[in-house]
Amino acid sequence: MTTSEDLLADSTTEASLARTRARSAEIDAAITRDPSRFRMLTGARPTGSLHIGHYLGTLREWVDLQDRGVDTWALIADYQVITDRDGVGPLKDRVLGLLADYIACGLDPERTTIFTHSAVPALNQLMLPFLSLVTESELHRNPTVKAELEATGGRAMTGLLLTYPVHQAADILFCKANVVPVGQDQLPHLEQTRAIAQRFDKRYGRAQADHAIFRQPEALLSEAPHILGTDGTKMSKSRGNTIEIRMTADETAKVLRKAKTDADRVITYDPANRPEVSNLLLMAALATGRTPQDIAEEIGGAGAGALKKLVIEALNEMLAPIRARRADLVADPGHLLDVLHDGNSTANEQADRTLAEVRSAMQMDY
Amino acid sequence: MTTSEDLLADSTTEASLARTRARSAEIDAAITRDPSRFRMLTGARPTGSLHIGHYLGTLREWVDLQDRGVDTWALIADYQVITDRDGVGPLKDRVLGLLADYIACGLDPERTTIFTHSAVPALNQLMLPFLSLVTESELHRNPTVKAELEATGGRAMTGLLLTYPVHQAADILFCKANVVPVGQDQLPHLEQTRAIAQRFDKRYGRAQADHAIFRQPEALLSEAPHILGTDGTKMSKSRGNTIEIRMTADETAKVLRKAKTDADRVITYDPANRPEVSNLLLMAALATGRTPQDIAEEIGGAGAGALKKLVIEALNEMLAPIRARRADLVADPGHLLDVLHDGNSTANEQADRTLAEVRSAMQMDY
Repeated sequence: MTTSEDLLADSTTEASLARTRARSAEIDAAITRDPSRFRMLTGARPTGSLHIGHYLGTLREWVDLQDRGVDTWALIADYQVITDRDGVGPLKDRVLGLLADYIACGLDPERTTIFTHSAVPALNQLMLPFLSLVTESELHRNPTVKAELEATGGRAMTGLLLTYPVHQAADILFCKANVVPVGQDQLPHLEQTRAIAQRFDKRYGRAQADHAIFRQPEALLSEAPHILGTDGTKMSKSRGNTIEIRMTADETAKVLRKAKTDADRVITYDPANRPEVSNLLLMAALATGRTPQDIAEEIGGAGAGALKKLVIEALNEMLAPIRARRADLVADPGHLLDVLHDGNSTANEQADRTLAEVRSAMQMDY
Repeated sequence: MTTSEDLLADSTTEASLARTRARSAEIDAAITRDPSRFRMLTGARPTGSLHIGHYLGTLREWVDLQDRGVDTWALIADYQVITDRDGVGPLKDRVLGLLADYIACGLDPERTTIFTHSAVPALNQLMLPFLSLVTESELHRNPTVKAELEATGGRAMTGLLLTYPVHQAADILFCKANVVPVGQDQLPHLEQTRAIAQRFDKRYGRAQADHAIFRQPEALLSEAPHILGTDGTKMSKSRGNTIEIRMTADETAKVLRKAKTDADRVITYDPANRPEVSNLLLMAALATGRTPQDIAEEIGGAGAGALKKLVIEALNEMLAPIRARRADLVADPGHLLDVLHDGNSTANEQADRTLAEVRSAMQMDY
């Protein structure tokens, strides 16, 4: 298994990152030329409400790609909720909440297939052949699996946590996505997915001689800056340092007024030495399309109070139409369920077609 | 995980075996009183043709339970073909061959649901929630997984081999079987299945408050003697020591005439000291309903030639009607496919119902 080991480890070396970055730029240019060649898979776990970090970090990019004409598939990864915890929590509410977040932020169900894992049996069945194509030690070496295990604080490794990169491969491959917007930390997952696609072709063959069943997905490397919570630590609802999409403007102002700053009255953008102030500047910059330096200069000696006021206005202005759409959406859960049923129906049709090809290649088409 | 460790290890201690044996006898008596209370899951991998060891060791017992009125489900475990090898081989032929073996030996598609893994997506989806209920170390300790890994001769542990006890739990639990005929070596699998059923109920709850979704399956411990190949080693097609159901009477005679015996002309039943001769006597005994001692006495000083003649006649007589049915069945593959479609259809209806309950308990019923 030396090859696979190298393959996963290599995907995050500097040289490999440089290649991935260059390739991402090529893909981006190709999308501009002809978006119809691309299908993208994205997704999130329904473990809580989306916050401004999700929106500015990833979701806004997904919407942009959708709007540029990429065929977009957005997964609500309900089975991944239980990879690292014992219960599902108020899952149904969270699924509908995430769906409302998605649509309010601009994912359009007319153009984007939004679906849940649990409603697509043929997708999940792909776990079986795919599990035969990976070794246990390969799964063990996956850096995200390792990190998530550590984050559970001494919980034993479950079968689901260990195998979730295989499930993620099924998500990407069943719908034949050829691009996946990912952060650097997810590159090993994508490399595992590519390995599974290749190995399937080599070991089990094809449904039609002239092309492999699975496309080789490529990374669209997201370089959006990482947004911290208002206290300078990781955004987390339990820390009260988070601005959620679904909050009101007043709630947003309240969290931001309590944001941590520092003793220096003159505002400057200096992420290394002034992380909290710089994070506020970054949020305002991403929300307004300006640079953080430009905003810092405007505020100058007016201090943290003026900075907070500007950030509150910038975020609330950006979020106002999103929040209005979200309020309408959650007021009509029947409509949300209809949207989900439509998405699941499209996903099932695709998954059934893909599984039929897989069964044919494996001589299981009886 | 001490509890689970103990639980798997305990299932094969002498005390536990004695309890399982006593409980099996109780279940057997209960089947006689009211077979309608029982559903049984059995199955085999389509890796080759069934031989006399399978028939005398297990399949004949399954047919007997079916004939006594137990609702019987017989799996053709096509995905388990790839747990320990790289390719599927001539899988479709083997699936239809196993189906023909099943029916020829007495499993009646009117009373027994015969189905394949790969055609029942909702069964396979149960892997996802079930994988969340087991730990990696628990899977590692499974003695059958260990033994099968060793048997692959240095092959790396694949994700599918590691997780196949979870898949087997899905086989048993999806159809709500409450009895599973097993040999002693499979008791840890059944214990793992029972643990998954219990943990699901505890962690994810129920579809209806008054009963758990999954029944607790119990072992029907098979104590049929183990049949060796005609050279005294394990039956294996590659060794040419096997009598397959599908062989002709002449082929059977040819294999048996070459059977290994020993230098002692007087035939006696003495498994410890005369394993090859005793194995021939055992086959003849199981085929005729006599005891091996009785047959040995009849032959006495007539020697190995007379013994072989008797075994050939006994096996060919027992197998003649089975082989005639099998020849008819394989002459009409369209009929076999129809039978399989019907079985898969019944299995899918059951799997869809069970998955709906599972999704409801997990709040995934959107």
